[in-house]
Amino acid sequence: MSNQYLLTLQCLDGPGLIKGVADVLLAYGANIVEQAQFTDPEAQLFCLRTRFETDNDDVIAMRASLVERLTHREVAVSLRRADVNRRVIVLVSKADHCLEDLLYRHKLGELRLDIPVVVSNHDTLRPVAERYGIPFVVLPVTAETRRTQEAAILQLVSEHAADGVVLARYMQILSDEFCAQLPKRIINIHHSFLPGFKGARPYHQAHERGVKIIGATAHFVTADLDEGPIIEQDVQRVAHNYSADDLVAIGRDIERRVLSRAVGLFAEDRVFLIGSRTIVFA
Amino acid sequence: MSNQYLLTLQCLDGPGLIKGVADVLLAYGANIVEQAQFTDPEAQLFCLRTRFETDNDDVIAMRASLVERLTHREVAVSLRRADVNRRVIVLVSKADHCLEDLLYRHKLGELRLDIPVVVSNHDTLRPVAERYGIPFVVLPVTAETRRTQEAAILQLVSEHAADGVVLARYMQILSDEFCAQLPKRIINIHHSFLPGFKGARPYHQAHERGVKIIGATAHFVTADLDEGPIIEQDVQRVAHNYSADDLVAIGRDIERRVLSRAVGLFAEDRVFLIGSRTIVFA
Amino acid sequence: MSNQYLLTLQCLDGPGLIKGVADVLLAYGANIVEQAQFTDPEAQLFCLRTRFETDNDDVIAMRASLVERLTHREVAVSLRRADVNRRVIVLVSKADHCLEDLLYRHKLGELRLDIPVVVSNHDTLRPVAERYGIPFVVLPVTAETRRTQEAAILQLVSEHAADGVVLARYMQILSDEFCAQLPKRIINIHHSFLPGFKGARPYHQAHERGVKIIGATAHFVTADLDEGPIIEQDVQRVAHNYSADDLVAIGRDIERRVLSRAVGLFAEDRVFLIGSRTIVFA
Amino acid sequence: MSNQYLLTLQCLDGPGLIKGVADVLLAYGANIVEQAQFTDPEAQLFCLRTRFETDNDDVIAMRASLVERLTHREVAVSLRRADVNRRVIVLVSKADHCLEDLLYRHKLGELRLDIPVVVSNHDTLRPVAERYGIPFVVLPVTAETRRTQEAAILQLVSEHAADGVVLARYMQILSDEFCAQLPKRIINIHHSFLPGFKGARPYHQAHERGVKIIGATAHFVTADLDEGPIIEQDVQRVAHNYSADDLVAIGRDIERRVLSRAVGLFAEDRVFLIGSRTIVFA
Repeated sequence: MSNQYLLTLQCLDGPGLIKGVADVLLAYGANIVEQAQFTDPEAQLFCLRTRFETDNDDVIAMRASLVERLTHREVAVSLRRADVNRRVIVLVSKADHCLEDLLYRHKLGELRLDIPVVVSNHDTLRPVAERYGIPFVVLPVTAETRRTQEAAILQLVSEHAADGVVLARYMQILSDEFCAQLPKRIINIHHSFLPGFKGARPYHQAHERGVKIIGATAHFVTADLDEGPIIEQDVQRVAHNYSADDLVAIGRDIERRVLSRAVGLFAEDRVFLIGSRTIVFA
Repeated sequence: MSNQYLLTLQCLDGPGLIKGVADVLLAYGANIVEQAQFTDPEAQLFCLRTRFETDNDDVIAMRASLVERLTHREVAVSLRRADVNRRVIVLVSKADHCLEDLLYRHKLGELRLDIPVVVSNHDTLRPVAERYGIPFVVLPVTAETRRTQEAAILQLVSEHAADGVVLARYMQILSDEFCAQLPKRIINIHHSFLPGFKGARPYHQAHERGVKIIGATAHFVTADLDEGPIIEQDVQRVAHNYSADDLVAIGRDIERRVLSRAVGLFAEDRVFLIGSRTIVFA
Repeated sequence: MSNQYLLTLQCLDGPGLIKGVADVLLAYGANIVEQAQFTDPEAQLFCLRTRFETDNDDVIAMRASLVERLTHREVAVSLRRADVNRRVIVLVSKADHCLEDLLYRHKLGELRLDIPVVVSNHDTLRPVAERYGIPFVVLPVTAETRRTQEAAILQLVSEHAADGVVLARYMQILSDEFCAQLPKRIINIHHSFLPGFKGARPYHQAHERGVKIIGATAHFVTADLDEGPIIEQDVQRVAHNYSADDLVAIGRDIERRVLSRAVGLFAEDRVFLIGSRTIVFA
Repeated sequence: MSNQYLLTLQCLDGPGLIKGVADVLLAYGANIVEQAQFTDPEAQLFCLRTRFETDNDDVIAMRASLVERLTHREVAVSLRRADVNRRVIVLVSKADHCLEDLLYRHKLGELRLDIPVVVSNHDTLRPVAERYGIPFVVLPVTAETRRTQEAAILQLVSEHAADGVVLARYMQILSDEFCAQLPKRIINIHHSFLPGFKGARPYHQAHERGVKIIGATAHFVTADLDEGPIIEQDVQRVAHNYSADDLVAIGRDIERRVLSRAVGLFAEDRVFLIGSRTIVFA
């Protein structure tokens, strides 16, 4: 069959959901290739991710049929051709390790997504973006211009029809208003294993406390949560003879790995959100 | 709803499978709680694991309906109440670490399975089994008596309606005939990360080669494969100042952890077999 | 040579320290088998762990010579025959997983230490201790009797010449006075990766936040620190379909592993303390 | 003190070695900052790595004094200023992931070494090297020209006074003669966890066997060993729904990480060789 599709669906649980989806898909001649499902026992929320093949190419009709069939359940449906990539805008400041890693993996085809533009409050990383042939836009920001600058970012999100925004060590705090505009669509890399050391210089704090393992956390950014829902985490063992600088270097390594994994999961529609926690069909 | 069921299903892929299952389940008033599916792209084999709830308690009718609906696909169906445990017989020799761990987790309820009997070619571990209130049977074995002894084991498997046999450091090689009687039902713990050092004393070989990580592998035992399909593996970092004895001690730790995890996955019907590799819905 | 010794030494840094030690040891005919050294760059504290062999068996004279040679540096010296085990008293309440693991490894010889007595505020775990042939003492405690009970524990520490106290899921908070009596000698297992979720039921908190990795931390207990210096930590990856109970079960696994490792490091004099962090010659 | 030095030393074990070194160093006014020592119990070989500070800057005299003092033990001594970097030549073919990672970490200062030249049998990666300002030399090779090409590489090693050669996915087999010229000085990254799948396409083999963990191994290249002494290894967990291509991508990630770590250990003189295994003072 010529077309692969990715379907994700979230709604209140109840009998007949999988059958409802299967009925609709079969009516469109679909064969399900991969299906993962989870119902959260507390929230009674049903999450489904399905990859299927069909010769039919009328996405709009398929989506409408699904919504119609499940409409009584306030369903959230996403359906797209698997070869139409998610699009994300990457925000950076001066540190290059996460950006380099994202663009390198993107070039290799490991990350199946489109990056229409890299945005920064500094000009520092322009050569990195341009080396990979990706437009680079500088939007400087001060306390006074934050509102305008964020509006410009939102404008870029809209222009490029971006599905998400990746904060790849973007060292600015985004306003609650901005975050509220893009729920479940902003991914940040936190330079600590959450729950972690609060405040600045977490690797130095980790060094002072003599932790034996350090980590990093990729999470969604939300307006009302200090640290949003966790998408991915990873850690590495360290020892007493590692200096704070060594920990910073290892931290860079974990950060880039964790962020790239989280972005890859997002790009393949594998991340669902239930309250303050994620469901990840890895 | 009062009853939870576990359904696993494997057959040739094709359109309508998930719908077929969903149709049947809904006809029995079922609500699907958790569903994992995977189709192997090379073998074109469809694997499904479903946990569902229903007030209906006619397992036999449900299973028959499923088989009938999918019969053209040479389907392998397993359906059981989730609270009716899998039953495994544990085979041991003299080393106690895997047995202790299995029985301890079993006692805590971490391993949801029944262990009707522990069998050994030695009397050494009788106190361990008896402490946990599990019958212990000694079936000594020599080259000459192997056939008889294995027949006695098979007899126990049959008597106790055991779903599987766990080799918890059982230091005898089972005959191909024995293994062929219990396909996909014998789980072994291999004292090496596979592919690994061949022959005896793998931890000493690992020490001589100065490996930096050691591991262990739980796998199905098959008649025709030297090392059967891998169910679970784990590793631990080691260093030059670890003696071969230290590696043996660490190996014990990995072995018991890996075997217990593999047995737990088996006990919850999470392991499927496609050719020489497993599908594990963890 | 017939005797192996373990020497640890901590003092202000300065030239000639290793030579000073080497001079003394050579004067006693010693051959150094293993030596690890670290000087903390901030605190300017020198830490040394040496394992050596000699035919000489006058420990007292050797220790005196070392102290004399380095006396101007306020040196802390520990010297003992390697085959004279450290002695620790284990405190427990009702949860058995850490105690089972410690005693099992002790039986196998993995943990080279002596456990003269297990103490508990409940009678629950008496069978575990007795099975391993270790005396079990019940010292119940209430808010009113805490002072008396702790005095009784200290009395046992003194009677048994214990080097340390291991809190193997001992669910009582020890008074600052008690902790101050045993600096660097009380080891606790914290049911969280530090810095971690505060308060009760950390695994449930972890579940609510949807963390992807959980962990545990073994640390020294100090009077003035909320969470004392970290000795060892470990983690395990988890997923959204793990219930809070699953996390508790995995937590048990990590806790027993981490505590046993920490106790093993302590038993072999591998842990040094500099301010709020440890130096661990693993 | 103005100068930091790195000393490594390997010789037959015997009493007085550490004292001998300490005597000499103190005579030169040295303060030892970090010292790691290990004596292999089977080979009776003593290995020492020492970092020390002194105002003295006569390296040649210090080294001579050390050799003189320990000459009866066939000692191998290396002594250098800590700020005089090791120099390595990097050999590549067409795959860029290891080279990118090495040069990126080198730029950040994580890898404290000099890379005077990158050599390849293809022109493909010239832009990568040049972007980091490192000369790139193409030395094509065929079966007929191998001898000449290897001579040219050795010539570069000699010209640039290189301490080592790093095979960063260099897809040519070096002749035994070449390897014999550079004992303990050639580092290779093996695209498998050793002992591993033999032959080509190891990640595809891993996929077919359904391994649950894949890895990579950095090792010294030796003339007489199929797979030389292991310097560093790492692994990552995978699952059944990872395609062989996914495993290749994850393999790239492990390979670059493991090779960079191994090169870093080599660059800081942390790797010793005893027979077919390494001692790594990490």
